[in-house]
Amino acid sequence: MTSDPEVTAQPTDRRQRILQVASELFATRGYDGTSMRDVSEACAISKSLLYHHFANKEDLYRNIVLSSAGNLYDYVRDRVPTEGSAADKIRAFMLVTAEFFDKHRWAWIAATTAFWSAGESELRQTRLVKRDSFEQHLRSLLQEGIDNGEFGPMDVAMTGRLILSSLNWMYKWYNPEKSKTPQDIAGIYFDTLLNGLAVRPA
Amino acid sequence: MTSDPEVTAQPTDRRQRILQVASELFATRGYDGTSMRDVSEACAISKSLLYHHFANKEDLYRNIVLSSAGNLYDYVRDRVPTEGSAADKIRAFMLVTAEFFDKHRWAWIAATTAFWSAGESELRQTRLVKRDSFEQHLRSLLQEGIDNGEFGPMDVAMTGRLILSSLNWMYKWYNPEKSKTPQDIAGIYFDTLLNGLAVRPA
Repeated sequence: MTSDPEVTAQPTDRRQRILQVASELFATRGYDGTSMRDVSEACAISKSLLYHHFANKEDLYRNIVLSSAGNLYDYVRDRVPTEGSAADKIRAFMLVTAEFFDKHRWAWIAATTAFWSAGESELRQTRLVKRDSFEQHLRSLLQEGIDNGEFGPMDVAMTGRLILSSLNWMYKWYNPEKSKTPQDIAGIYFDTLLNGLAVRPA
Repeated sequence: MTSDPEVTAQPTDRRQRILQVASELFATRGYDGTSMRDVSEACAISKSLLYHHFANKEDLYRNIVLSSAGNLYDYVRDRVPTEGSAADKIRAFMLVTAEFFDKHRWAWIAATTAFWSAGESELRQTRLVKRDSFEQHLRSLLQEGIDNGEFGPMDVAMTGRLILSSLNWMYKWYNPEKSKTPQDIAGIYFDTLLNGLAVRPA
């Protein structure tokens, strides 16, 4: 019997904990600025136990990127309703993306910022494929709204970019301690995009 | 007499050239991933000549950040008309920002991405003050449109964020070789934001 937390913690919990701690380190110090030693110290575990879970820093980072950007596409696809107006679906798309950002903020930031240093890797390619599917989903909803007469004519690709820019940029300024929730912000963005700034005739 | 380009180039030209080359390096490799040796080699000048112009890497980076983010505020303020509708002014604000991005893309990217590693420095503070003035300018134009009846009621702060997000995110995906100009893109964004996606009654 032992009460050493290194031994008694469930492996899945410990793995999750390592991913969370490492996400925050990568997010705040960058990929180059974070070492495996930093991660093991921040988790209060030995380096050998850390290496038991992740082969090296790249492997650890890969798992963070795939758990955030990688799952966003599936997460959103599973939660956007298939019935209703295109506007309702796009609203859901935006709010669910914001919810995902809220839940996985450090991993999201780590994937967005540190990624730059990762170069033209296979990981980058995997992520880009997921990103393309995500963007394609949004474009199909915009096209649906044009086809059914809800929306006026538009450049679908650029409108999709505009919507995603609003959500993607949030990592840079959002402060959970003094702001609305990401979901509230996404709701305000949606209303603005749907109705526009200009006064509508009564 | 000598034809050594190190000696014959005008100091101002050389300084500008170093800033341009270093911007691209910082933008593509990050701050940590770029050394003074990398910069001197990419400029084909000696390290001692590089150090003649910039005391160290931080000094070089500081000059890049201040030349991009630092000047954006003044650049835009000088070019947004003071007469006309609020909509026209906001359109100009967006197009001029896009034009600045187009002209100083590498410096913009270097300032946006590598900045993360620079931490809570005085440089960061200087930049944030400039950013605040820039954002405040946009908010005053939105408020002007509400006050004169052009725009409906809105959350001015969040609408300003939405507009700036569209422009700020461009660094991440814009590819000058296969895209519209940043100014064209900003124009499309503006039209969408002004009129909204939903069909307007005729």
